Amino acid sequence: MTQSKHNNRHIVLHSRPHGAPDASTFALRDGAVPAPAAGQLLLRTVYLSLDPYMRGRISDAPSYAAPVELGAVMVGATVSRVEASRHPDYAPGDLVLGYSGWQDYALSDGEGLSKLAADMAQPSAALGVLGMTGFTAYMGLLDIGQPQAGDTVVVAAASGAVGSIVGQIAKLKGCRVVGIAGGADKCSHVVDELGFDACIDHRGADLPGRLAAACPDGIDVYFENVGGAVFDAVLPLLKVGARVPVCGLVAHYNDTALPAGPDRTGLLTRALLTKRIKMQGFIIFDYYDQRYGEFVAQMNIWLKAGQIRFREDVVDGLEHAPQAFTGLLAGKNFGKLVVRLADR
Amino acid sequence: MTQSKHNNRHIVLHSRPHGAPDASTFALRDGAVPAPAAGQLLLRTVYLSLDPYMRGRISDAPSYAAPVELGAVMVGATVSRVEASRHPDYAPGDLVLGYSGWQDYALSDGEGLSKLAADMAQPSAALGVLGMTGFTAYMGLLDIGQPQAGDTVVVAAASGAVGSIVGQIAKLKGCRVVGIAGGADKCSHVVDELGFDACIDHRGADLPGRLAAACPDGIDVYFENVGGAVFDAVLPLLKVGARVPVCGLVAHYNDTALPAGPDRTGLLTRALLTKRIKMQGFIIFDYYDQRYGEFVAQMNIWLKAGQIRFREDVVDGLEHAPQAFTGLLAGKNFGKLVVRLADR
Repeated sequence: MTQSKHNNRHIVLHSRPHGAPDASTFALRDGAVPAPAAGQLLLRTVYLSLDPYMRGRISDAPSYAAPVELGAVMVGATVSRVEASRHPDYAPGDLVLGYSGWQDYALSDGEGLSKLAADMAQPSAALGVLGMTGFTAYMGLLDIGQPQAGDTVVVAAASGAVGSIVGQIAKLKGCRVVGIAGGADKCSHVVDELGFDACIDHRGADLPGRLAAACPDGIDVYFENVGGAVFDAVLPLLKVGARVPVCGLVAHYNDTALPAGPDRTGLLTRALLTKRIKMQGFIIFDYYDQRYGEFVAQMNIWLKAGQIRFREDVVDGLEHAPQAFTGLLAGKNFGKLVVRLADR
Repeated sequence: MTQSKHNNRHIVLHSRPHGAPDASTFALRDGAVPAPAAGQLLLRTVYLSLDPYMRGRISDAPSYAAPVELGAVMVGATVSRVEASRHPDYAPGDLVLGYSGWQDYALSDGEGLSKLAADMAQPSAALGVLGMTGFTAYMGLLDIGQPQAGDTVVVAAASGAVGSIVGQIAKLKGCRVVGIAGGADKCSHVVDELGFDACIDHRGADLPGRLAAACPDGIDVYFENVGGAVFDAVLPLLKVGARVPVCGLVAHYNDTALPAGPDRTGLLTRALLTKRIKMQGFIIFDYYDQRYGEFVAQMNIWLKAGQIRFREDVVDGLEHAPQAFTGLLAGKNFGKLVVRLADR
């Protein structure tokens, strides 16, 4: 069956990947479109957000959230249109931000939903710059990174959904900002469109040498969302008192074994000690209660003033979500990755 | 020549050790006792503090302080008696806290000295519980560790100068405190004399299993001053939101090469991320300007009330400092290690 008003296509976790997800990881299924009971809504997914954290959810290694069960619908944040409503607060045509997952339709009792403005120019932004990824950039940089004017801030995955916003906020705070991205196109975008001071292509030779040359005074804040060779290049450049918000480690998400030795854990802790470095992991869900309103208000100001720009990488069709997600983990996206399932 | 009023015996750094310091690392020299010029004092060293950080100073690896030059007098904090004074603020017989290093006599212009109370019962405490090591325990635990009542706090080197104070302050803050120490004697002392809830002997088999059993609810604060196998046992037990002040890494100070693989750096950063752990190095010198007065006032209150106890390991004679220092790095001391050079 193909997409229709009578078919709730959905993508389930079919097998847990060993390493990178592949064709056997997910499966596309047909299903009945459910009917809302009293107090419920039927939601039609318009946009589905794809994000690196989902790699953790399809693994059964211990993490901060329970894994998706085999056979269950993949989780994910969504912008949906209310298709039918038996809930007093919602009417058909309303746009809502929710967590329907990888499927065409979902029921909701309204819990965890937030209504989007009817005239919102680009509703998918609620999944990115105005949503989880923008909020992640904002809190990680400001709350943990604590950038000061004049600081050198280095941002990995600089053209991505989080990194692109981290760097632009750091520029607004008066920092010198150096991005790291994969490929000349992304690097040009980061400097020319987003206004970073420099961007280093991590695919070229001698990443450590080129990064050092771009950071002649060392690094005050490193926003970590990659790990691996990028972190190796950053560590020797961190200054006394540096801050390292740990937001993600996408270079490691598909690892099937620990890298070969020597064990450099002691090198890292020694650097933390002698340079009084703060390294702190964070999960954005911890911040919603206290700081989400402040973030949305501030980000809307920056967006309206043209001080923050964002780029989306839009993939059409639920059926392409698995391939798009696999590409995301390999850095093949260019900007915030979203899947468009329907017109708004 | 032996110790006399006319011989300034001093210990110099003779060679940089590869691994543990040995008999060739330090050399004892004779020298003339200097005469104070106008504005100067002649100090007679009474107590010399020996501390693990000194291992860093005899290495030329980059660190937070410049290394001791070959042939130069070893550095170290001291309690001294003013022997002769041409300085208006000091009189012979005054006791002062300073940084004369490993020698019988030193000149000073008064800079960096602080006078100790004439009736101070145990002047060596100015090098320990009321000095750098006590202050290190206080700031690292309270400023970075931020213990809350009911938290489980784990302290390595629990019978040592810093660890013993960390644990007692944590008890005063209402925490459950588990020490880790080397040997049954030290463990008994930590529990019976210092009042920790438990103490694990790291020399026995299955440290991870015994530590886990002693921390059934996990670990909220780990005060890191050891590294190595102790940290390996702690890491899996750290809870969401745990804090790890990194004060020292004595297990690694004599390392001559990185440990064999696999490289577990990524495991550590993944734990920081998924458990939102804050790991932060600190150097106590950063805190003196702002917080030292507060610390001394508070610690004196605790000491007078008998709420904090401390144990010193006193070695007699400057000539024994090298061996005592080598033993300190191997955990052979029992309490704050000081060398007594003279009567007060």
